[in-house]
Amino acid sequence: MSDHGPVSPQPARSAPTPIHDSDDPRLADYVRLRDTSLRRHLESTHGLFIAEGEKVIRRAVEAGYRPRSFLLAERWLPGLADVLGGWPEAPVYVVEEALAEQVTGFHVHRGALASLHREVRHTVDDLLTSTRLVVIEDVVDHTNVGAVLRNAAALGWEGALLAPRAADPLYRRSVKVSMGAVFSLPWARLDDWAGAPDLLRRAGFTTVALTLADDAVDLAVVAERLRARPQKVAILLGTEGAGLSHRWTAGADVRAVIPMRAGIDSLNVAAASAVACYVLGG
Amino acid sequence: MSDHGPVSPQPARSAPTPIHDSDDPRLADYVRLRDTSLRRHLESTHGLFIAEGEKVIRRAVEAGYRPRSFLLAERWLPGLADVLGGWPEAPVYVVEEALAEQVTGFHVHRGALASLHREVRHTVDDLLTSTRLVVIEDVVDHTNVGAVLRNAAALGWEGALLAPRAADPLYRRSVKVSMGAVFSLPWARLDDWAGAPDLLRRAGFTTVALTLADDAVDLAVVAERLRARPQKVAILLGTEGAGLSHRWTAGADVRAVIPMRAGIDSLNVAAASAVACYVLGG
Repeated sequence: MSDHGPVSPQPARSAPTPIHDSDDPRLADYVRLRDTSLRRHLESTHGLFIAEGEKVIRRAVEAGYRPRSFLLAERWLPGLADVLGGWPEAPVYVVEEALAEQVTGFHVHRGALASLHREVRHTVDDLLTSTRLVVIEDVVDHTNVGAVLRNAAALGWEGALLAPRAADPLYRRSVKVSMGAVFSLPWARLDDWAGAPDLLRRAGFTTVALTLADDAVDLAVVAERLRARPQKVAILLGTEGAGLSHRWTAGADVRAVIPMRAGIDSLNVAAASAVACYVLGG
Repeated sequence: MSDHGPVSPQPARSAPTPIHDSDDPRLADYVRLRDTSLRRHLESTHGLFIAEGEKVIRRAVEAGYRPRSFLLAERWLPGLADVLGGWPEAPVYVVEEALAEQVTGFHVHRGALASLHREVRHTVDDLLTSTRLVVIEDVVDHTNVGAVLRNAAALGWEGALLAPRAADPLYRRSVKVSMGAVFSLPWARLDDWAGAPDLLRRAGFTTVALTLADDAVDLAVVAERLRARPQKVAILLGTEGAGLSHRWTAGADVRAVIPMRAGIDSLNVAAASAVACYVLGG
């Protein structure tokens, strides 16, 4: 955690640039961070994503993502000096916190933002060589996607596949909630929603649909059966309201349920992923 | 879930009151819902809390909390008619969504708010008669407190105790994230932080501190030992950054760890509570 990579001779960087005007076009990467539809458009058009907070910025850069620029309150300069020094071509904009709030549309608690280049780091085929995968269907809440990836990474799962409609793991909220696990845990986007259960089966996975369906088997029983004969496992996770689609539920090898107290809503998908990754871990 | 209580003759209620002025004093319960320190003061002074969304409002009222007033966009009137009819003395303020946003300081996605009277529903002594308790130390994030209570309720735990510094389960965010589990799961506030481990022991609980300490025992091993000799169990949960205090960790009967992949942040406290409640469930 304290290993920030090899020390290399750092090329000189120009001094940080103070900015006092919230309309300054150099801040365009950072506008209206809470406006989901604007951000989706802006980030895909320009191929960027936003990391928030010193720790998460550091993890993005250490994972090899290239910064476009940094937007910092002055007090964050010393703590991030090594990161900034490693990227002399990425401008550092220094602003008052009030200006940051005007630009981004919210109070940036941690006072440090970075804009980084998006990259496709893994393919679906890469992921299919793992032995423990979480597969996220239509979870559209960024907080939930970030939390599922964090749980999977913490509990030793090897990667995640996301259906075409699942929320973006590189969206600011996903990144933040994941504490940067979206950078360290390999993930890839499926092109073909309908074919996913078959694809996983052909790659040798036992697919376990997490569901509340009546014919589902108690997760503890599923875990025992899987332990009895070690095999590749993919957990299929659906959206909180409607759960998994019929296609994925019916297409899975096993339907597993986490027993719930009657009259209580099911666990949220992130909590369910923690339980399932723990119980079905390799 | 569709049982909204017995049908009783509903006394006539006066028509809903349209309000067009965001400074109208009748909206005082609903001001600046995102301003945590203002809300803490306002809610404790007036003994109120806020429920958000049709489902959560309904659950609060069904659990016996008495509404002070409702603040609704007009389109929510039909869906909540039975709830409103049951409380003719609680005024119903009907506003445009833009006005609701002005008053509350954010976009009220679900278009329905209620202000309800706070009540102490359970004592610490009540809770000590249970056999499965979660005990929350200094978790100050409302989202986490709400999620822990939801997980505990869903996984069949009987109640929660909260240390004096833990976040308020009736704060709007806690209520919302819990999906109303804060109304159905009994909980109470501890007066004495330092004495909690002893109090639990005297009440017959085996206290299990969830920790990353080096001398902690694998949670799976702890679960096996507890299953071998059925007993009352209390899980002690600490704040995400620093974890449990030394006093609670050292004072617990057992220190348990959820094994994590090296280099990854621990699970967030809500995810950890889901795993622990699942694994140590009675």
